[in-house]
Amino acid sequence: MKCRLINDDNQRTWVIVFETGEEAVQSLTAFAREKELAASQITAIGAFSEVELAYFDIEQKQYQKIPVTEQVEVLSLLGDVTLGQSGPKLHAHVVLGKRNGSTCGGHLIKGIVRPTLEVILTESPIHLRRTFDAASGLALIDPELR
Amino acid sequence: MKCRLINDDNQRTWVIVFETGEEAVQSLTAFAREKELAASQITAIGAFSEVELAYFDIEQKQYQKIPVTEQVEVLSLLGDVTLGQSGPKLHAHVVLGKRNGSTCGGHLIKGIVRPTLEVILTESPIHLRRTFDAASGLALIDPELR
Amino acid sequence: MKCRLINDDNQRTWVIVFETGEEAVQSLTAFAREKELAASQITAIGAFSEVELAYFDIEQKQYQKIPVTEQVEVLSLLGDVTLGQSGPKLHAHVVLGKRNGSTCGGHLIKGIVRPTLEVILTESPIHLRRTFDAASGLALIDPELR
Repeated sequence: MKCRLINDDNQRTWVIVFETGEEAVQSLTAFAREKELAASQITAIGAFSEVELAYFDIEQKQYQKIPVTEQVEVLSLLGDVTLGQSGPKLHAHVVLGKRNGSTCGGHLIKGIVRPTLEVILTESPIHLRRTFDAASGLALIDPELR
Repeated sequence: MKCRLINDDNQRTWVIVFETGEEAVQSLTAFAREKELAASQITAIGAFSEVELAYFDIEQKQYQKIPVTEQVEVLSLLGDVTLGQSGPKLHAHVVLGKRNGSTCGGHLIKGIVRPTLEVILTESPIHLRRTFDAASGLALIDPELR
Repeated sequence: MKCRLINDDNQRTWVIVFETGEEAVQSLTAFAREKELAASQITAIGAFSEVELAYFDIEQKQYQKIPVTEQVEVLSLLGDVTLGQSGPKLHAHVVLGKRNGSTCGGHLIKGIVRPTLEVILTESPIHLRRTFDAASGLALIDPELR
C-alpha cells in the first residue's frame, strides 16, 4: 500500500453535464487536458444509448471488450484523472441498469450519452502519476512519484 | 458538454443517518428544502426493506417502475440535489444487492430504510438549476443557468 | 433521521493505492487506526482476485457470507470510517464485475487486491461514533453522539 495526502487545502469542484450524442470518455479526457487536471476524482449518474465495457484479463494482460447495445441507466460511474505518459488519463468503472432492473458493468471504454450525464469532478491541487507495471501490463498510480 | 466550477472555496459536508421505516427520497428532499440546498452531491450505503426503482424509456419519454419487494443492501447510492421548478430536487441512482449477491438497480423513486442508510452530502455554495428539455421530456441540469 | 455537519472548513483527502496480494478491509482499517481517522468517506475502483461479500439477514440479525472466487473488477466501493467500540471501523459496500459483464455485490468482508485498488479517502475533522442498536443487532452511526 502506498498513500499520499492529496488535499490539505482548497479543492476545486466542477459539475460537467453531457448532452445526447457526446461520448463520455473522450470528452472527459479532453476536459482534463484543457483544464490540465493532474489528480481528480469523478462520480456521475445519467444514461447511455450505447456502451463499450471491458474486463481486464489478468492472465493475458489485456482488456476484453463487452459491448452493450441498448439504452441503459448509468447507476454509478466512479473514476479518477491522473497523469499518464501522454498527459491526463481517465480511469473509470461503471455499473449500468437495464429496462428490467438487471445490471451489468465494467471498465468504461466508451459511453454515448442519452439524454444526460451529470458528472461531479473534484480537482486536487497536486499531481498523481501512473507508471508502467510489468507484472500486470498496466500503468498503475504510484502516489509517491512526484 | 457544459461545465461550471461549483466550488473554489469552502464546501459544507453533512452526514445524514436514516432509521428503519424512513423513506429516503422524501426525507432527503425535505432535508434539502429545510437547508435550502441548491447544488449538492450525495453518496450513501445501507439497506432497504422495499424499493421502487425506475428505468427511463427514452422512446416513450417516461419512467417505467420496477418494484423490489425484498430486503436489499444499498451497495451504491449516487445522486445530486439541484434546483427544479418547485425548489430543491433530488436525482439519485442506486445499485442494490440481494441475499445471493445478485444485483439490480435503477433510478430511485422510493426506498424504505431498514435498518440504516448512511448518507454523505456535500453542499456547494452555488446554485445549479434544471430546465425542461423537450427532446427527452426531462428537466436537465443547465450549469450555465444562473 | 439524524444529521450532523461534519465539515465546514478544511477536509483532508488521501489517495491510497493497494498492490497485488493486499487485503483491502484489513489494510484500510490499519490505515485508519494509524492516522486516527474518526469520520471519513471512501470511494474506490480497481480489481480483486478473491472476495468475501456478505448480506445482512435482518431476521436472524447476522451476516450471511457470499464467497466470490474469481478475478473481478471493483466497479464501485463506497464506504465510511467511523469510531466503533474498539477504534476506527470501516463499513464498505461493493459492486463487482465479472468476465462477461455481469455483476454481483454486497457488504465487503474481505477483498484480495489484484493488480490495483485506487482509493480516495476524505477525512473530516470531527468524530462520528457508532452505538449498538438492539433492534437490528448492528452498531449504527449516531451523528448526535459526541
